[in-house]
Amino acid sequence: MQPLPGFRDFYPEDLAFRQSLLEICRGTARRYGFQEYDGPPLEPLDLYKKKSGEELLGQLYQFIDKGERSVALRPEMTPTLARMVAAKHRDYKKPLKWFSVPQVFRYERQQKGRLREHYQFNADIIGEPSLGAEVELVALLIDTLRNCGLTSADVVVRMSDRQFWLDFLRTKNVPEDQWYAVFQAIDKSEREPEEKSREALGALADDVFQVLREGAPSERLTEVMAGLRARGLADFARVDFRIVRGLAYYTGIVFEVFDRQGEFRAIAGGGRYDDLLEKFGNEALPALGFGMGDVVIGELLKARGKSLPNIASLELYVIIAEETYRSAAGAVVQQFRDAGFSVDYSLAETKFKKQMEAATYRGVSQVIIVDEKILQDVISVKNLITREQIDLSLADALQYQNALRKKQ
Amino acid sequence: MQPLPGFRDFYPEDLAFRQSLLEICRGTARRYGFQEYDGPPLEPLDLYKKKSGEELLGQLYQFIDKGERSVALRPEMTPTLARMVAAKHRDYKKPLKWFSVPQVFRYERQQKGRLREHYQFNADIIGEPSLGAEVELVALLIDTLRNCGLTSADVVVRMSDRQFWLDFLRTKNVPEDQWYAVFQAIDKSEREPEEKSREALGALADDVFQVLREGAPSERLTEVMAGLRARGLADFARVDFRIVRGLAYYTGIVFEVFDRQGEFRAIAGGGRYDDLLEKFGNEALPALGFGMGDVVIGELLKARGKSLPNIASLELYVIIAEETYRSAAGAVVQQFRDAGFSVDYSLAETKFKKQMEAATYRGVSQVIIVDEKILQDVISVKNLITREQIDLSLADALQYQNALRKKQ
Repeated sequence: MQPLPGFRDFYPEDLAFRQSLLEICRGTARRYGFQEYDGPPLEPLDLYKKKSGEELLGQLYQFIDKGERSVALRPEMTPTLARMVAAKHRDYKKPLKWFSVPQVFRYERQQKGRLREHYQFNADIIGEPSLGAEVELVALLIDTLRNCGLTSADVVVRMSDRQFWLDFLRTKNVPEDQWYAVFQAIDKSEREPEEKSREALGALADDVFQVLREGAPSERLTEVMAGLRARGLADFARVDFRIVRGLAYYTGIVFEVFDRQGEFRAIAGGGRYDDLLEKFGNEALPALGFGMGDVVIGELLKARGKSLPNIASLELYVIIAEETYRSAAGAVVQQFRDAGFSVDYSLAETKFKKQMEAATYRGVSQVIIVDEKILQDVISVKNLITREQIDLSLADALQYQNALRKKQ
Repeated sequence: MQPLPGFRDFYPEDLAFRQSLLEICRGTARRYGFQEYDGPPLEPLDLYKKKSGEELLGQLYQFIDKGERSVALRPEMTPTLARMVAAKHRDYKKPLKWFSVPQVFRYERQQKGRLREHYQFNADIIGEPSLGAEVELVALLIDTLRNCGLTSADVVVRMSDRQFWLDFLRTKNVPEDQWYAVFQAIDKSEREPEEKSREALGALADDVFQVLREGAPSERLTEVMAGLRARGLADFARVDFRIVRGLAYYTGIVFEVFDRQGEFRAIAGGGRYDDLLEKFGNEALPALGFGMGDVVIGELLKARGKSLPNIASLELYVIIAEETYRSAAGAVVQQFRDAGFSVDYSLAETKFKKQMEAATYRGVSQVIIVDEKILQDVISVKNLITREQIDLSLADALQYQNALRKKQ
């Protein structure tokens, strides 16, 4: 039997990567004073009808539950966040700085081999209208990438200003029902021949292409870039008016992260969405946020030969020289585990050589040998790399391991 | 809008508990040399038809997906584990020691207020027939409870031997189709009047009650208890033949954890299931495991006034004395975050007093004040408890905070 198409099994070696990545996201967000929240993976279908576009609604895992409710697996986190914030934001001082690392689900019919679930690091700031929030949010995104080992030579945050584009369209008297087409044309302009984009843009083409080439004044972008510069993070960001983030619900600064070599899809994206939360509650609440999936960044890290620190490696393996010392070995194992070491050993009588092989297989660099010396409270510690072996009392062995660990 | 009935929103204060609990499970399992895995929350419906009982099948969140597949949200982890192990166990040295902390889903119609999802710490050992595996698995369960702050006065692992009961039924020539009724009667015997149990047990009543009162010889239980004793964990365990774990798929030692005061439902349960994996693959693979949900242990910890360490508390709050120092403050914030501290500050111009209030609200014991002294690279560190305030260079302030952290 196989998992469903588009769903991943995480064997220990796969899970190690996912956990390391998500722990980097969590750790960075906590250092930024963000607090973690989570919601249900299954929500009322109506929640998604409020804001999600047609495309997303067509990709929902939806069904009728045993209580006759229309429900759906969450395709993104923002509606859940909006629902939770609307219900309780009065209980918290603003701004809220919240993050989450949910698994989200989309049934994409066409693309074979494309995943139907992924984990998504979401960070949002709610209740803060000033651009200081943009600086903080984009800095968090950059530091998350940095903590994955990526440099400003690897990735770039392309920042734009939707408010600029909205003002531009109003100034040019473009009717609102044509805005979507203009944004689509801008979005596609970097992948399509200029002729085609010009055709789609019609009379606007010259003005739009001038902005795309030369940029345009935006005090908002200047302020956000200055804030990033103050933190030493400006190398990771650049202004790029081609970023428009579809039509969606963005109202101000928007941004997307790409690899510098342009090999991969967007790694992350987000922006300000000041009008959205009002649709879920009764109050207007300024807000901004980003989402970063686990898949594209995983591909990028792999392509760049970067590995994440393994947070779950085994430290010690206890070898039971003769079966008669199993109980005594149990006490030794317990002592080291109580002291916080990760320790494994053979669960049943096993030849000495096989135990050494198992220790090597599990990747430890040291074994503890329990033999007749345990009757005098003495164990041997053997370094598998240098082949050095020393005898120590139990208490000394613990001190020795603690000292080794501190050195690392 | 509300979440679906039976589903929980995790606001930061709720999520903090869930994360602390699951991190204790993860940390303990890693110290025991267990490796984390995970599978999809959505699986083919057929996966659950292979082993799950009627009751569970009636509680599935099942539906037809857009590709006409019958699918279900996972109600438990064991079938996913069995599927994954069957597919790839040849790639790993035995025994496998694997754990997972999945969210699982059951639609229980009758009980209002009962949750329809919970998180479940699952640990399994696969490929080891000897009782050394039971010792290791039960020790892991006990140490997880200990690491939550529970003592042997709070909780007990009640261990029994299904193999003993199966032998007993065979010796008494009880036909196999009556075994379920006998196990049900034994299971209920501690909650029902003896009369009623005796009636259900019929001719077996005297013999069964003798075992329940006086115990019975079981070398298996004796060996497991001895192993726990060698580790100093025997106070947490006792033999109790009333534990039978339904009819399910258990074949050997079984166990359940209860609070000593008998206030709550079982906190955890598990046992050996040597025949199950064969149904998913082509090979027999001895196995044992347990599951522990997040709900009952949460209720117990609350009732006993035990709190878990908060892994996500804020350490520092940077106060921007005048708005003109915002950029400089940004660099200070960055320096401390780069050094691993969790730091928050006001994202927009805010009165000094309000910033101090925000720092107190976020629970920090120290603030860093950035004022005109920053032009000489000097900041003030104020202890909110002692009200002491000292001026330090940026470099000294970082050393000072590192030293404070080490003391804690």
